[in-house]
Amino acid sequence: KFGLAEKEDQVGVVTGLAWTEVGGDLLSIEALKLPGKGRMKTTGKLGDVMKESIDAASSYVRSQAVSYGVKPPEFEKMDIHVHVPEGATPKDGPSAGVGMVTSIVSMLTGIPVRRDVAMTGEVTLRGNVLPIGGLKEKLLAALRGGVTTVLIPKDNVKDLRDIPDNVKNGLEIIPAETVSEVLKVALTRAPEPIEWDEVAEAAAMATNDASSEGGSVAAH
Amino acid sequence: KFGLAEKEDQVGVVTGLAWTEVGGDLLSIEALKLPGKGRMKTTGKLGDVMKESIDAASSYVRSQAVSYGVKPPEFEKMDIHVHVPEGATPKDGPSAGVGMVTSIVSMLTGIPVRRDVAMTGEVTLRGNVLPIGGLKEKLLAALRGGVTTVLIPKDNVKDLRDIPDNVKNGLEIIPAETVSEVLKVALTRAPEPIEWDEVAEAAAMATNDASSEGGSVAAH
Amino acid sequence: KFGLAEKEDQVGVVTGLAWTEVGGDLLSIEALKLPGKGRMKTTGKLGDVMKESIDAASSYVRSQAVSYGVKPPEFEKMDIHVHVPEGATPKDGPSAGVGMVTSIVSMLTGIPVRRDVAMTGEVTLRGNVLPIGGLKEKLLAALRGGVTTVLIPKDNVKDLRDIPDNVKNGLEIIPAETVSEVLKVALTRAPEPIEWDEVAEAAAMATNDASSEGGSVAAH
Amino acid sequence: KFGLAEKEDQVGVVTGLAWTEVGGDLLSIEALKLPGKGRMKTTGKLGDVMKESIDAASSYVRSQAVSYGVKPPEFEKMDIHVHVPEGATPKDGPSAGVGMVTSIVSMLTGIPVRRDVAMTGEVTLRGNVLPIGGLKEKLLAALRGGVTTVLIPKDNVKDLRDIPDNVKNGLEIIPAETVSEVLKVALTRAPEPIEWDEVAEAAAMATNDASSEGGSVAAH
Amino acid sequence: KFGLAEKEDQVGVVTGLAWTEVGGDLLSIEALKLPGKGRMKTTGKLGDVMKESIDAASSYVRSQAVSYGVKPPEFEKMDIHVHVPEGATPKDGPSAGVGMVTSIVSMLTGIPVRRDVAMTGEVTLRGNVLPIGGLKEKLLAALRGGVTTVLIPKDNVKDLRDIPDNVKNGLEIIPAETVSEVLKVALTRAPEPIEWDEVAEAAAMATNDASSEGGSVAAH
Amino acid sequence: KFGLAEKEDQVGVVTGLAWTEVGGDLLSIEALKLPGKGRMKTTGKLGDVMKESIDAASSYVRSQAVSYGVKPPEFEKMDIHVHVPEGATPKDGPSAGVGMVTSIVSMLTGIPVRRDVAMTGEVTLRGNVLPIGGLKEKLLAALRGGVTTVLIPKDNVKDLRDIPDNVKNGLEIIPAETVSEVLKVALTRAPEPIEWDEVAEAAAMATNDASSEGGSVAAH
Ligand SMILES: [Ca+2]
Ligand SMILES: [Ca+2]
Ligand SMILES: [Ca+2]
Ligand SMILES: [Ca+2]
Ligand SMILES: [Ca+2]
Ligand SMILES: [Ca+2]
Ligand SMILES: [Ca+2]
Ligand SMILES: [Ca+2]
Ligand SMILES: [Ca+2]
Ligand SMILES: [Ca+2]
Ligand SMILES: [Ca+2]
Ligand SMILES: [Ca+2]
Repeated sequence: KFGLAEKEDQVGVVTGLAWTEVGGDLLSIEALKLPGKGRMKTTGKLGDVMKESIDAASSYVRSQAVSYGVKPPEFEKMDIHVHVPEGATPKDGPSAGVGMVTSIVSMLTGIPVRRDVAMTGEVTLRGNVLPIGGLKEKLLAALRGGVTTVLIPKDNVKDLRDIPDNVKNGLEIIPAETVSEVLKVALTRAPEPIEWDEVAEAAAMATNDASSEGGSVAAH
Repeated sequence: KFGLAEKEDQVGVVTGLAWTEVGGDLLSIEALKLPGKGRMKTTGKLGDVMKESIDAASSYVRSQAVSYGVKPPEFEKMDIHVHVPEGATPKDGPSAGVGMVTSIVSMLTGIPVRRDVAMTGEVTLRGNVLPIGGLKEKLLAALRGGVTTVLIPKDNVKDLRDIPDNVKNGLEIIPAETVSEVLKVALTRAPEPIEWDEVAEAAAMATNDASSEGGSVAAH
Repeated sequence: KFGLAEKEDQVGVVTGLAWTEVGGDLLSIEALKLPGKGRMKTTGKLGDVMKESIDAASSYVRSQAVSYGVKPPEFEKMDIHVHVPEGATPKDGPSAGVGMVTSIVSMLTGIPVRRDVAMTGEVTLRGNVLPIGGLKEKLLAALRGGVTTVLIPKDNVKDLRDIPDNVKNGLEIIPAETVSEVLKVALTRAPEPIEWDEVAEAAAMATNDASSEGGSVAAH
Repeated sequence: KFGLAEKEDQVGVVTGLAWTEVGGDLLSIEALKLPGKGRMKTTGKLGDVMKESIDAASSYVRSQAVSYGVKPPEFEKMDIHVHVPEGATPKDGPSAGVGMVTSIVSMLTGIPVRRDVAMTGEVTLRGNVLPIGGLKEKLLAALRGGVTTVLIPKDNVKDLRDIPDNVKNGLEIIPAETVSEVLKVALTRAPEPIEWDEVAEAAAMATNDASSEGGSVAAH
Repeated sequence: KFGLAEKEDQVGVVTGLAWTEVGGDLLSIEALKLPGKGRMKTTGKLGDVMKESIDAASSYVRSQAVSYGVKPPEFEKMDIHVHVPEGATPKDGPSAGVGMVTSIVSMLTGIPVRRDVAMTGEVTLRGNVLPIGGLKEKLLAALRGGVTTVLIPKDNVKDLRDIPDNVKNGLEIIPAETVSEVLKVALTRAPEPIEWDEVAEAAAMATNDASSEGGSVAAH
Repeated sequence: KFGLAEKEDQVGVVTGLAWTEVGGDLLSIEALKLPGKGRMKTTGKLGDVMKESIDAASSYVRSQAVSYGVKPPEFEKMDIHVHVPEGATPKDGPSAGVGMVTSIVSMLTGIPVRRDVAMTGEVTLRGNVLPIGGLKEKLLAALRGGVTTVLIPKDNVKDLRDIPDNVKNGLEIIPAETVSEVLKVALTRAPEPIEWDEVAEAAAMATNDASSEGGSVAAH
């Protein structure tokens, strides 16, 4: 009944780390995009704090869209669904924030997530990684589940002295201060930024509209 | 008062398996599409977890629409209503997920569901089938209700050793790891995929719009 | 204080049968259509299960619209209001489903409902009639209220052996397995189906739009 | 602190009758229309049943609009606000239904309501008047408040035998079976019906739109 | 910690009078308009009754817009925000109604409110002023806070006999029966009415639309 | 576990001061703008009073947009997300109002906030700064966290006599009566106002629309 690492690198699927009174566990996080209107759906018996962490993750990703090669207006044409399976198990807390960001960026870029990486950390709207609780239990769950690399908040490095040596030897533990550092490790390749000039693009789109809509008019 | 298998193969009607403190039961799941605007309605005194399992099922199906022969923009022109009859009986849990997917795919494709098949299993946004509880009670209910074939999650195969032999002999029990495996068994024929090129289709639609709207203008 | 049968055949007004701890009673169900945008309003201190039974009834009727002579796009131009009078009395349960369907079909077609008929039964999205509770109390209320004919679910026929003879002699009790059987008895005449070809109709409407909007343009 | 009859005939202001544990009272009901989009607002610390009675009253009035001289599309261009003053006092129950109808019809037609009339009765979607509770207390409040005429449901006539003679002598008590009978008494003059042919009107409006929008086009 | 009168005449800022178990206090009421779509926002930990009093005030003002020189369609182009500062203090009750009306009218017209005036009174949709509770405590708070003039409901004049003489001598107490009387005292000058002919204005706007939109078309 | 001052001047990130039963703490406030439709999102386990303080802050800023160099219609093209990190910690109260204003103005103008400044104070819709509670605890938290300058409401100056000398010596404490005074201290440079004539701008935009949309029409 303990969670296991994913069996292959997948797009939009991230392994998070949960911590409850009964210990740590792996948490699968899935993001999916659908043709839509910029709506966000979240499922998986998520508490309000975890839902808000998805909101924050989503806003951060949207604010950084061009650095992932995504044109900002694309968001208005898709709905994003974030689901955390095992739908009968309640989940809450902000520490899945980095997992949410990674899942959404992977889904948007089509770049798979490394199956052997797990991660934990709250994210801010600026992409900073804040410390989390239950580090020991989470690392134990990662080890047990077959994960080889774990991303943790830099502010939790001080807690590593309380972690048993066998856990620290069995895992590559990578501290991260920002989401960029997380993505560098977790994605199988780096996203390619685009340039985006809102005014120029709007003008280009207006021209396209005019010519496509006005096609038959121009002919007479 | 125990549920019975359906009397004929029907489009959009699936037999699920429920598990409560008083034992297992058959659960009828109905999906219907109506001209609309992409809304989803769910009825039948469903708890939040079951409603979320319908959301997940619906998103999975939409993400795979072309593999069922459905053009993605069709979803914006229909409303989908999923109902679980016996409206006074509360229902909850994620294990009707595979039934929800099968019901919606059958309804979208017009391909009937085999009346002698029942199914249980949580689904993820990627169409993986996760394990469920109450396997024994569910299989007993299936046998009692006249079902001949039961689809169960592959991760529940280990629980089959606790199932009485008469139940295992009376039912064809088919483990499934993905929704595709479920649909292969449950639908009376396989859906036919289409090809879909979003950009090309959008262009084609724009052309159609221009010519239909501009018809009388072009004539003078 | 006991409900009585209606005094005349009316359009959109149906006599249902309620069952509470204090016995059975007649329940008046009213449907009204108004120019609108496809919205559904329900009033009369209705519980969630009864509201869901109206949703299911409404979806069933919409899915069968052409068999009642109603063009599907009509639903987008009207709001439907279903009210159950005696607004201070709480009402709940799924057994008014057949009454809801009958009320809505009568209202849409303009065909009156027989004033001497009462009915009870849950409906599914496919128009099947499911069994209900409190049959005895409901039949007593029907007899007392001056009803002559009662439609009951076929699956409740087995409960008729527990009904006193004077009740069975005083009422014509008609079992129904589907909504079609209910409507055949309850409406004063049969609705006339239309043919409907969505694609052809959409084309026709586009043409109409073009010519009406472009009228003055075409003239110069 | 007891309510008094209005000081003059006003448009959209009706005197209803309330009944609580501490006796009966007059209830002022105000309806106002504003330029808008067909929305309904209700204020005055109203309970759910009273809010539903306003919904039912509003739907009834809309369904009868032409008999009051109101073109149905007008409703889509206005918002209606129904307020019951003394905003700190909770109010509930369906018996203000006839007052709600009268207030809305007066407001729509601009015909004042007789200041010396009070009324009580639940209304159905067909404009039938259903019986109410607390008749004695309500009549006492009417007498005390200076009202001279009280409209009551016909089904409450049987309760008049329990009313003290001085009350019956001091008030003109008029039983009503339908809303039409109520309006005939309460409004200072009868509304004038119009004829309305939805299809013809829609055509006329389309023509108007074309000519007004196309004005400058037609000129060149 | 007791409220004080404002330091200058301000647009949209009114001094109301609150009454709680611990005595009376001054209440600042602020209205602001923003470019928008006819939405109303209310903040300041307001109870439902106070929120409804803002709804009633707003509807009254909108119904009288032309008498304040405001064209009715202007409301569809603005959002109105009413805030009652000291956001941690819960506030409720209908007696701030006249303050709400005054604040909104001042904000719409740009006419400042007299800083030395405080007011209390419920308002109806017709602009009548209804009596309030806690007159004594409210007047004491007004005196203590440096207010010189207090507007009270005419129906509260009878309660003035219980007010200590020093309070009555220290304040100019002005009874008001209608909102018009309140505004005459509270605003630093009278609003100037406009004439408004909905049909004529709509026609004028249509013409404007046609000419501005059709400008380049008319030129060829 | 105590909050620390930010490490650099950032755009849209402000240090507020919180006060709970267990003492004072620093509070990071983040505002972000995204392409959108004028929606406001708030996250961080915020109580209703803090959410309302964000509403008030936002309305104030919108009403003063031109003084910050922001064209009012810009607000309809963006969504604003305000987040208060440490998402598992509940936060409430109105005293973060000045921080909310500063965060939003910084984000809109692109002018960084001084990293060594913390602030506390409720704001009104007119930009006045109202007094707060817990001044001592908040100043202690500021000192401990490495902040050098603290903005406090002018009405709290009287409470400074109760603050230990070492705290007053270790901090520059600046009283503010209005938001303008706050921004003058907290932003690294002053925003540049623009002129804005709504009517003229609307006309200019209409012209732009006409020429861009009509481009191909003008060419023939
Ligand atoms: Ca698990
Ligand atoms: Ca898995
Ligand atoms: Ca059953
Ligand atoms: Ca069945
Ligand atoms: Ca009854
Ligand atoms: Ca009746
Ligand atoms: Ca009263
Ligand atoms: Ca009055
Ligand atoms: Ca105060
Ligand atoms: Ca002040
Ligand atoms: Ca902290
Ligand atoms: Ca930080």
